[in-house]
Amino acid sequence: MRFDIITVLPGLLESPFAHSILQRAQKKGIAQIHVHNLRDYSSQKQKSVDDYPYGGGSGMVMTIEPFAKCIDALKAERDYDEVIFMSPDGETLNQKIANQLSIKQNIIILCGHYKGIDQRIRDIFVTREISVGDYVLSGGELPAAIVVDAVVRLIPGVLSDETSALSDSFQDDMLDAPVYTRPADWNGHKVPDILLSGNTPAVEQWRFEQALERTKQRRPDLLK
Amino acid sequence: MRFDIITVLPGLLESPFAHSILQRAQKKGIAQIHVHNLRDYSSQKQKSVDDYPYGGGSGMVMTIEPFAKCIDALKAERDYDEVIFMSPDGETLNQKIANQLSIKQNIIILCGHYKGIDQRIRDIFVTREISVGDYVLSGGELPAAIVVDAVVRLIPGVLSDETSALSDSFQDDMLDAPVYTRPADWNGHKVPDILLSGNTPAVEQWRFEQALERTKQRRPDLLK
Repeated sequence: MRFDIITVLPGLLESPFAHSILQRAQKKGIAQIHVHNLRDYSSQKQKSVDDYPYGGGSGMVMTIEPFAKCIDALKAERDYDEVIFMSPDGETLNQKIANQLSIKQNIIILCGHYKGIDQRIRDIFVTREISVGDYVLSGGELPAAIVVDAVVRLIPGVLSDETSALSDSFQDDMLDAPVYTRPADWNGHKVPDILLSGNTPAVEQWRFEQALERTKQRRPDLLK
Repeated sequence: MRFDIITVLPGLLESPFAHSILQRAQKKGIAQIHVHNLRDYSSQKQKSVDDYPYGGGSGMVMTIEPFAKCIDALKAERDYDEVIFMSPDGETLNQKIANQLSIKQNIIILCGHYKGIDQRIRDIFVTREISVGDYVLSGGELPAAIVVDAVVRLIPGVLSDETSALSDSFQDDMLDAPVYTRPADWNGHKVPDILLSGNTPAVEQWRFEQALERTKQRRPDLLK
């Protein structure tokens, strides 16, 4: 699977893609993540990629041309399944969308910055607009990293233990049960007896009940 | 405002905090962001910070001691308003929570990894559990960066143009109106005439209607 991320701040994405699961997935050849500097596609002298908004108002708006050039250059090389724009007004990312995206081959992600991007980029090039949540960030870079992380870890072979992803929160519309490790007693705070019992069916039953209870308390909407 | 982030992957957070608004906020002295390596607080020979889960099952669980030591060391230096654990089963981050956090002084953020952290860490130390959305990620590092970004940009003096944050999506429970910049005609794709009219009240009215329409279509839940 291949991601091409177009951003005005390529340096911001360096360390998230160079660690942990995303690093391993790239080393194994399972995922390719390419970050493109939008300024390289500007034909302006100052390599500028933004301009004042029509109609006035605060903030700068990213111009069409650099995005168009970069997208065209990428599409000349291969077909893309999606051109995603990270935006707070897109559809909200959830585990189902992550699952859907994990079976795609090639995805372009556009990161906005400043006040936004020219609406025509969205109208002409973008196939899907995704939000990571109902909050405003400085740019689309961290959201792009979130999408890549959520998706890549679902590709078979990326996680060392495949059952680990399947038992995660949300995969079955339930939150996880609490987990415990050694020591069994930490300053008087003890691990629930059942987990030390060695009775596997009873442990599984307890975990199911705990997960259900936590979901009922915290996220009853998931159970509907 | 000060953030102390405790993680097993401090390197992952290097570039997000070294760019853009987070870099500027730190340079201006408005925000301090300290990233602590959890392994530095392990008393194990191998600096390990995880162990097998009680009751069996896949994945490793992060142990209490290194978190406890790091949190205690920080609390010995200053008072903290919140100890936040980034978790998919926490309350879902939104702009209201970001606003609330932006008036705090000192915040600790714990990043989980692997299968999770020992439940007793959550029971004993954590004051607030926050999720960035209904999806599973490799760890709490990107979510921590999201929280810091969403919060720091709200602190007065961080954004160059303060009106910019106030007119963002979600601050008034509405999505943003579309934005446009030059050229007025790009390969036949034109900017709406109203934005070129110079009639400011008419532009404002158009923007309000567009924002309302987009919110109705995409996020009717925000209008309730």
